Amino acid sequence: MKKVLITTVPFGDKNTLPLEMLKEANIEYIINPLNKKLLEDELLELVGDVDAIIAGTEQISARVMDRASNLKMISRVGIGLDNVDLLAAEKRGIKVSYTPDAPAPAVAELTLGLMLALLRSVHVSNAKMRDGEWHRFFGRRLAEVTIGIIGVGRIGTRVLNRTKGFGTPRILVNDVMPNLELDRQFKLQWVTKQKIYEEADIISLHVPLTFMTKDMIRKEHLLLMKQDAIIINTARGGIINEQDLYEVMQSGHLSGAAIDVFEHEPYDGPLNEIQRCLLTAHMGSMSIDCRTRMEIEATEEVVRFFNEKKLLGLVPKDEYDIQRQAL
Amino acid sequence: MKKVLITTVPFGDKNTLPLEMLKEANIEYIINPLNKKLLEDELLELVGDVDAIIAGTEQISARVMDRASNLKMISRVGIGLDNVDLLAAEKRGIKVSYTPDAPAPAVAELTLGLMLALLRSVHVSNAKMRDGEWHRFFGRRLAEVTIGIIGVGRIGTRVLNRTKGFGTPRILVNDVMPNLELDRQFKLQWVTKQKIYEEADIISLHVPLTFMTKDMIRKEHLLLMKQDAIIINTARGGIINEQDLYEVMQSGHLSGAAIDVFEHEPYDGPLNEIQRCLLTAHMGSMSIDCRTRMEIEATEEVVRFFNEKKLLGLVPKDEYDIQRQAL
Repeated sequence: MKKVLITTVPFGDKNTLPLEMLKEANIEYIINPLNKKLLEDELLELVGDVDAIIAGTEQISARVMDRASNLKMISRVGIGLDNVDLLAAEKRGIKVSYTPDAPAPAVAELTLGLMLALLRSVHVSNAKMRDGEWHRFFGRRLAEVTIGIIGVGRIGTRVLNRTKGFGTPRILVNDVMPNLELDRQFKLQWVTKQKIYEEADIISLHVPLTFMTKDMIRKEHLLLMKQDAIIINTARGGIINEQDLYEVMQSGHLSGAAIDVFEHEPYDGPLNEIQRCLLTAHMGSMSIDCRTRMEIEATEEVVRFFNEKKLLGLVPKDEYDIQRQAL
Repeated sequence: MKKVLITTVPFGDKNTLPLEMLKEANIEYIINPLNKKLLEDELLELVGDVDAIIAGTEQISARVMDRASNLKMISRVGIGLDNVDLLAAEKRGIKVSYTPDAPAPAVAELTLGLMLALLRSVHVSNAKMRDGEWHRFFGRRLAEVTIGIIGVGRIGTRVLNRTKGFGTPRILVNDVMPNLELDRQFKLQWVTKQKIYEEADIISLHVPLTFMTKDMIRKEHLLLMKQDAIIINTARGGIINEQDLYEVMQSGHLSGAAIDVFEHEPYDGPLNEIQRCLLTAHMGSMSIDCRTRMEIEATEEVVRFFNEKKLLGLVPKDEYDIQRQAL
C-alpha cells in the first residue's frame, strides 16, 4: 500500500473529497500531526517511509529527500516552488507537480481587499476604537492613486482585472517581459521597478521567491517610495526584508503595509508593533473554493502518479532552470 | 459681515479651498471648537449669532433653530438629513441644502473593502497575530456568495458597479421601487427584505435613516440571517439595533459585521468586545477627493445664498414629506 504524507495544513477540512479520493485509491495517508508549517527537522521525522508528499511551503531539501528513501513524488498544493529543491529532486528521479492556477483568484481578491482597507486605514481605526479612540481617518480612493504591480503573471493579471470597476487612472507594471496581450485589455505603463518604487501610491508584489527576488525590497528601496505609499506582499515572505520594513515604518515612512507572508511562519516578530502594518496569516489562497480546488488537484496528481497515468501538473523546465541559475 | 458656524469636523483640513472661498466672500466663520460631533446643548452654545451652519450629522432641532435667531441657511456636508428637523426649518423660512452625490463613491468603495475584509477575516487575523496567535482563516470569495443590498440609490448602485470584476453569481436587491434601468446593467433579483435576510451571505445597507428605517434590523431579523452571514452598515447608526447586534454576535451568530456608523458617535460600546465585528469611525465619505468635493459644494452653496444667487443643492420636497409622514 502506497503511503502519502500530507504536510500542508489545514487539509480536507472544509471539503473532505481529497481524503476520500486517497481512500478510494487505496493510498494510506498521514496528515501533519504538528498542525503548523514544519521545520526541516520535524519533516525529517515524518518522511521515513512515505512514497509521496502532498506539500505546503515547508522546506523540502536534499536532506529530506535522502531520508525519504521511498519518495517518488512531491505534489505541491499551490504555486510557489521556492521551498522545493527541484535540482535535488531531479537528481533522485522524484517527480514534482504543482497547482499553479488554483490559488490565483483567491490571492487576487485578498489583495484588492487589502488595498481598499489600507487606503482607508480600516485596520487602524478598528484597533483604535478598541483603545477608546475615535478618529475619522482621511483616505484615498483607487480612482485617486497610481497602482504599481510587480509581477504580472497569473495573480498580478487577476488583480488588474479586479481593479476595473474602480477607475484607477494610472497603473504601472513591471515584469521580466512586457505582456502585449494585457496591453489590449488595460491601460498599462511597463516601467522599471525603480520607477514603481518612486511613483506608485500602492505597490503590490506578485513575483515568485527566487534567488533574484529574495530581499528584492530592502531599506534603500523602501526609502525611495513616497512618504505615504502603501506596500502589499501576498506573494512570499523574504521578498521584502522584514527587518528593513520594520525600521522604515517605525521611522514614520509609508502610510501602510499589508503583509500576508513571512520569512518564518507562523510569524511573531517586530512588525506586530506597527499598528498601520496589517498582518494576516498566509491566507492568500484560503478561500474555500480555491483551497478545495488546490487540494483536489494536488491529490488527483498523486493518484494519477500511483496509477501510472500521465501527470497533468508537472512543474515546467523553466522552474528548474531558475534554480539552476541560482547555483 | 455674515457669520457661518462650521460644525462638521474635520473641515478644510486636507484642502483649504473651502476656507479660502469663505474669506474671499467676506464671510466670517468659526469651526467647531470641540472637534467632535456636537451634542444639542453644545450646539446651542455656538449658534447664537450665526447666519448659516455648514453642518455635519449633529442634531439641528427646533430648539437649536430658535436659539439661532439669525439663522437663514443650513448647508449639509453630505447626504443624510435625519439630523435636521426639516419641518422646523421650513416653518422658520430657513433654507436647507445638501451634497447628496459627493460622498457616494467613497462610501461605495469603503463598503467593498469591508466586504472583502470580512469575507477573509482579515481584521480577526490581524488582531490575533498581535496576540501571538497564528490562524489561517478560511474565507469566501465574492464569486462564491450571494450579495443582498438594501437600498439601491446613489450609493447602493455604486456598490453594484464595483462588484462587477468579481463575478458574484447572485445579487438580491431591495428598494421602495425596482429600478428597471439597473436591470439593464446588472443581473439583479428584486426581492423583499425578508428574503435578503434569509438568503444573502453579505447584507449591506444603503438606506437613509428615517422613521421607517430606524431600528429596521432587530434581533428577530438578525436571527433570520444565515449563521455565517455578514452584515455591513455604512449608512447611518440606528438602522441596525446595536444592542441586538451585540447580543446576537455574542451568541455566536453571524460570521462577521462591519459597522462604520453608530447611534451615538464617537462610539464606545459593547461591540468593541466582539473581535469579528470590524469597527470604523464614520469614515465612509472620508476619501480626500470626496470629502473635499462635499466641503466645496456645501461652501459654494452658502456663498451663493449670501450673494442671492440661485441655490443648486436645495433639499427636494420628498425629504420634507418623509419627515411629515413621521409625525
